[in-house]
Amino acid sequence: MHGQFLNPLMYCSQMLLPTLREDPAEAQITSHRLMLRAGMIRQSASGIYSWLPLGYRCLKKMEQIVREEQDNIGAQEFLMATIQTADYWRESGRYDDYGKEMLRIKDRHDRDLLYGPTNEEVITAIMRDTIKSYRDLPKNIYHIQWKFRDEIRPRFGVMRGREFYMKDGYSFDIDKDNATKTYHKIFASYLRTYARMGLKAIPMRADTGAIGGDQSHEFIILADTGESEVFAHQDILSLDPFAVNIDNDDALRQNFDQWTGFYAATEEMFSQDDFNQYVPKNKQMCARGIEVGHIFYFGTKYSEPMQAYYLDHEGKKQLMHSGSYGIGVSRLIGATIEAYHDDHGIKFPITTAPFIAGVININMQDAACCDYAQRLNEQLINANIDVLYDDRDERAGIKFAQMDLIGIPFHLIIGPKAIKNNMVEIKNRHTNERSHIAFDQVVAYLQNMM
Amino acid sequence: MHGQFLNPLMYCSQMLLPTLREDPAEAQITSHRLMLRAGMIRQSASGIYSWLPLGYRCLKKMEQIVREEQDNIGAQEFLMATIQTADYWRESGRYDDYGKEMLRIKDRHDRDLLYGPTNEEVITAIMRDTIKSYRDLPKNIYHIQWKFRDEIRPRFGVMRGREFYMKDGYSFDIDKDNATKTYHKIFASYLRTYARMGLKAIPMRADTGAIGGDQSHEFIILADTGESEVFAHQDILSLDPFAVNIDNDDALRQNFDQWTGFYAATEEMFSQDDFNQYVPKNKQMCARGIEVGHIFYFGTKYSEPMQAYYLDHEGKKQLMHSGSYGIGVSRLIGATIEAYHDDHGIKFPITTAPFIAGVININMQDAACCDYAQRLNEQLINANIDVLYDDRDERAGIKFAQMDLIGIPFHLIIGPKAIKNNMVEIKNRHTNERSHIAFDQVVAYLQNMM
Repeated sequence: MHGQFLNPLMYCSQMLLPTLREDPAEAQITSHRLMLRAGMIRQSASGIYSWLPLGYRCLKKMEQIVREEQDNIGAQEFLMATIQTADYWRESGRYDDYGKEMLRIKDRHDRDLLYGPTNEEVITAIMRDTIKSYRDLPKNIYHIQWKFRDEIRPRFGVMRGREFYMKDGYSFDIDKDNATKTYHKIFASYLRTYARMGLKAIPMRADTGAIGGDQSHEFIILADTGESEVFAHQDILSLDPFAVNIDNDDALRQNFDQWTGFYAATEEMFSQDDFNQYVPKNKQMCARGIEVGHIFYFGTKYSEPMQAYYLDHEGKKQLMHSGSYGIGVSRLIGATIEAYHDDHGIKFPITTAPFIAGVININMQDAACCDYAQRLNEQLINANIDVLYDDRDERAGIKFAQMDLIGIPFHLIIGPKAIKNNMVEIKNRHTNERSHIAFDQVVAYLQNMM
Repeated sequence: MHGQFLNPLMYCSQMLLPTLREDPAEAQITSHRLMLRAGMIRQSASGIYSWLPLGYRCLKKMEQIVREEQDNIGAQEFLMATIQTADYWRESGRYDDYGKEMLRIKDRHDRDLLYGPTNEEVITAIMRDTIKSYRDLPKNIYHIQWKFRDEIRPRFGVMRGREFYMKDGYSFDIDKDNATKTYHKIFASYLRTYARMGLKAIPMRADTGAIGGDQSHEFIILADTGESEVFAHQDILSLDPFAVNIDNDDALRQNFDQWTGFYAATEEMFSQDDFNQYVPKNKQMCARGIEVGHIFYFGTKYSEPMQAYYLDHEGKKQLMHSGSYGIGVSRLIGATIEAYHDDHGIKFPITTAPFIAGVININMQDAACCDYAQRLNEQLINANIDVLYDDRDERAGIKFAQMDLIGIPFHLIIGPKAIKNNMVEIKNRHTNERSHIAFDQVVAYLQNMM
């Protein structure tokens, strides 16, 4: 019969985890430097990265939170291709607008293709071909797929790469009123999504740019090393992202009004006069931020040129009303690290950490230590707690430094002294505090923290 | 507090499921025709498809089986980008070999990029930069990522599309002997992978083509509508793909010898003389088949030009020995449908079906029927059985036909007569037999079939 292999991802001696002791010259910002040093990514071309196992695990955790919160608001997952035909973009009128950031491709028959930077055209074409009547609406659908933006100067690692991973969702409603309700629902779900990742995201009125439309909000998380300056009423930080009932349209509108009632603006939209008028001096917060999401209501901007109609109750043709909604999944890893790190490395939040716990055996030559470490490892695996066991024959200092660098939230240190008393030393990577805990209490302790 | 939305993917009235009554003109083969008619995919450009929710669910089920079997043999998951630099391909010497099937791209700085048709170069570059010593080997790693092959005449839907989803794995060993052991392990795991999908795959010696190397096998599944003719000793069909212990090198070699001991060849490799010599007349099987996997051992073909060395026990530089291993994940859906269908539609195997059960309420105007259907639906959801509820206000015949078309393995029919006796009619889509079952036995019955 078939045997079960040990999962090599759980053993430092086997995992492809090429950590670096030195800062790589190519990295200008903290998250880029730490992702390279922690062996999460490797650049394979300018602004294009391979996600090594540690980084890939983190990407999958981010993606899963995004997916669950999309599913929670009744969005349907599907998948569009990365390569698109230019024909749709000519229909919508955007083909010439998009400039050099669009990666344009000619196939062997000299037909114009492109690597999708966004998917409004493709989904509008699908909807016009499949939606017949008001009974088929509303539809709220999303996919999580790679995108390409041919940045003139790719930099900052996955924060401004060329190939990036994004959740983009699209909604189709019968009219503006219903589309606005959808917008409010997605607004609320985005707040929840970031909050589950341990990130405080502030929605800010935004420019509609290349997507276009009537209304748009960016979601910005605060980080000292953020790319742009943001200005906000500091009380917005005390609002609870989990406080709204997502099934209730009125509650969603009130939630939207409450969050957008506070002044909040990026540099682009900032006005000193408005800031002074709407925010008392002692509540004026100036900080730096990173954009991690962007939502748009654009009504019939695409349905009109692309002729995406449905038949209403009276059998009359009507245009669908739409919005699009993006979350930068790969970028969120950079943003998380900008928000969570210290001089020793990354400090991953529990919900997006590639592993929850790291077992450090400080003496691989000591049979009792090896026995304890292996048993602890198995306990954690059986309890479904993601664990990385540093089973390398290395000095304790090297192991401590690596576990700090890669940002595992809880370090479980197995040494000859502690195990004599059936104890494990536990280090909380967020506080960097160490304490002792009984060997058979470790699983319960961690489950309590998760 | 946050409310839980009903998942719209589980209700025909809400799901984006645009089934077609007519055969689409563009489709030449069964699987293409049925995938379009069942609303699984839509073409967005020649050979490029969007995966609508039904097709996407199936793709994810396929992918998960592939992933689990890779993990079971200790392969590590990671992810390489879709876009590659041409530089690596110039290093390996393949850039000019690959011809027009490679989608070549120039970025805004006029640098040569390409959409990866395969990833030997990128992974060899990663390994040469990260592997230092024999202690870092072996490594067996894989990713599941979109590929592009600019077919001159894309056809047969996802069976020969241009953008396709593939698991490609790569192994790095210290020498040929170890690399051969890895090859045998992957050989065995591929047999398991297809068997779990309900597919009987036959390994056949293959040409090494554009990948190159010393040894190669294709995995071919039998289907009357297959693309190529295959010739084999029919006793190979009686071998058990689950019979080998994957932890044991000797068992793996014996397993390999046993499977490859039977004559099996595609048209390309076929020789009538060999066939007659090695296979008794009454055991000669001629059939049609579909390629669903391909494995290669190519030794130092890439490590040599790209200088991927490790240091051996004596500190001497040695070349890594490698192979690559592909499974066509999107293509497998087409292949599955070619193998499992009848005149009414698809008959998905349980392990890859987008839903296990379909609840058909034949009278949405009957309150008792609605109550029973809703309760049955909830029971299945609570038991973690993927269920699609046809809650549309349509005629029973339309619902039966759609459930047949989309290939759900078990249809649970709720009608006024049966529910009076607390019974549900159950149709097995594979046998098309109907029977009655007590309402409260349905979950146990299905769990028993899974």
